[in-house]
Amino acid sequence: MLLSENQRKDYEKNGFLFLGDYFSHQEISHLQRELERLPKDAPGTILENDNKTVRALHGCHEYSQVLKSLVQHHRLVQPAQQILNERVYLYQFKVNMKAAFRGDVWPWHQDYTFWYKEDGLPRPEVLNVSIFLDEVNHFNSPLYLIPGSHKYGLIDVEARESNGHGEAADWQANFSANLKYCLSQNNVEQMAKKRGIVAPVGAKGSVLFFHGNIAHASVPNISPYNRRQIIITYSSVQNIPIPKKQRRPEFLVCRDYTPLQPEKDDSLLQFNTV
Amino acid sequence: MLLSENQRKDYEKNGFLFLGDYFSHQEISHLQRELERLPKDAPGTILENDNKTVRALHGCHEYSQVLKSLVQHHRLVQPAQQILNERVYLYQFKVNMKAAFRGDVWPWHQDYTFWYKEDGLPRPEVLNVSIFLDEVNHFNSPLYLIPGSHKYGLIDVEARESNGHGEAADWQANFSANLKYCLSQNNVEQMAKKRGIVAPVGAKGSVLFFHGNIAHASVPNISPYNRRQIIITYSSVQNIPIPKKQRRPEFLVCRDYTPLQPEKDDSLLQFNTV
Repeated sequence: MLLSENQRKDYEKNGFLFLGDYFSHQEISHLQRELERLPKDAPGTILENDNKTVRALHGCHEYSQVLKSLVQHHRLVQPAQQILNERVYLYQFKVNMKAAFRGDVWPWHQDYTFWYKEDGLPRPEVLNVSIFLDEVNHFNSPLYLIPGSHKYGLIDVEARESNGHGEAADWQANFSANLKYCLSQNNVEQMAKKRGIVAPVGAKGSVLFFHGNIAHASVPNISPYNRRQIIITYSSVQNIPIPKKQRRPEFLVCRDYTPLQPEKDDSLLQFNTV
Repeated sequence: MLLSENQRKDYEKNGFLFLGDYFSHQEISHLQRELERLPKDAPGTILENDNKTVRALHGCHEYSQVLKSLVQHHRLVQPAQQILNERVYLYQFKVNMKAAFRGDVWPWHQDYTFWYKEDGLPRPEVLNVSIFLDEVNHFNSPLYLIPGSHKYGLIDVEARESNGHGEAADWQANFSANLKYCLSQNNVEQMAKKRGIVAPVGAKGSVLFFHGNIAHASVPNISPYNRRQIIITYSSVQNIPIPKKQRRPEFLVCRDYTPLQPEKDDSLLQFNTV
């Protein structure tokens, strides 16, 4: 499952690539059922500000064979290898829930800011792959992207003041609606003036590949439609974190840098998740 | 300037009608300049929760000849007369600012709830006309509408608890992001399941006619684009408020029920607003 030359050029130019119908509805149903089976109180769980609604899950591939198998899926690993021009390891695994009526804002940011500042990841040789578990439309808070904004490189921003979490839960500030490292309004305005904003929408089973330095955001989900996405971050095996401070928990930043071997196509369907 | 039979049927069926290129860019520029000339501390001004950003202005036609002339514009009054099948008076005049980066959410609601409960307006024989002063796109918080939801009639909802404003400023609860009368998630879910959600977008100068009972909402504006709209509400002269309690201020609910006379076409351009 390799990307075409045009697809690679599109990614290079825009910092993202959207592909519809990438996973079948059957495969997505398996993933949905697996999500429902996951323990509700796993350590990588983040709640919304209402302290009830699940905002995101992290590292759940560690306790799910189905999700572990997804990480190694050849339809994901092979394009990641192409784009990063190297073998890859799993850097981060998460599920963003964006619950109907309750999923809160993600302010404008670049993901790599967190990985550089918090984890000491040397270079932005990372690729995010978002797998749509629900239809994404213009109403359930699609990702807003500024095309080509990855070419600005990492934009230095100051950390926001702590939002009152203790040190133990400090990592949570990187995932709440009060995000620790946000782009300034001025940054966003300048980039959007030149390059506009887009919001890839499509059926469940679509995937969105996007660069660690692309500027992105999403509004609160006020619609009655869930917008669940699995986001897998791959990093080049030449790009290993060099931590300058205490490491973040392993459910946020994987410690296993073994190159992933692409798994055969039906790996998603070989487990009984019913 | 009359609506066609098809346009009237569309409005009847969907509860809204979107018309692009309704006012020229020259006319819109006049209106924009006029807005900038308005006093910043007029009594009908509502701020966002940040206590700085202007959220909305009310009743400013009272101190602007240009805006007063817009209210009487034949391109607005004539369709209003057609739709309401009667002569009309001005019920409410407002400007929703939805400022770039700062304009906050409008939760799901029906406008007529407020006019019925707060003002004693007997029937939903009212028409909103929204005039786009900026381009509306999928990023600067377009109005989300549930097509046909006006046919459910007025859905009874409980008032939210007071958000701490004193009695004097009680009317402000009808305009803040903590809106007093909201539709329940269950209401919205049921209606959207049957009828979907739409978001009319288009260039500045477009207009959106919409029914007082249509369910609508808008997300916070996290984009760098302003989304200013003038919203004029016309009511049938057969539909006069019968207040059951102390009246809301006149800048919110007009007291002059004189039928409006449609004004000639160049009325918007006859004032020097430079």
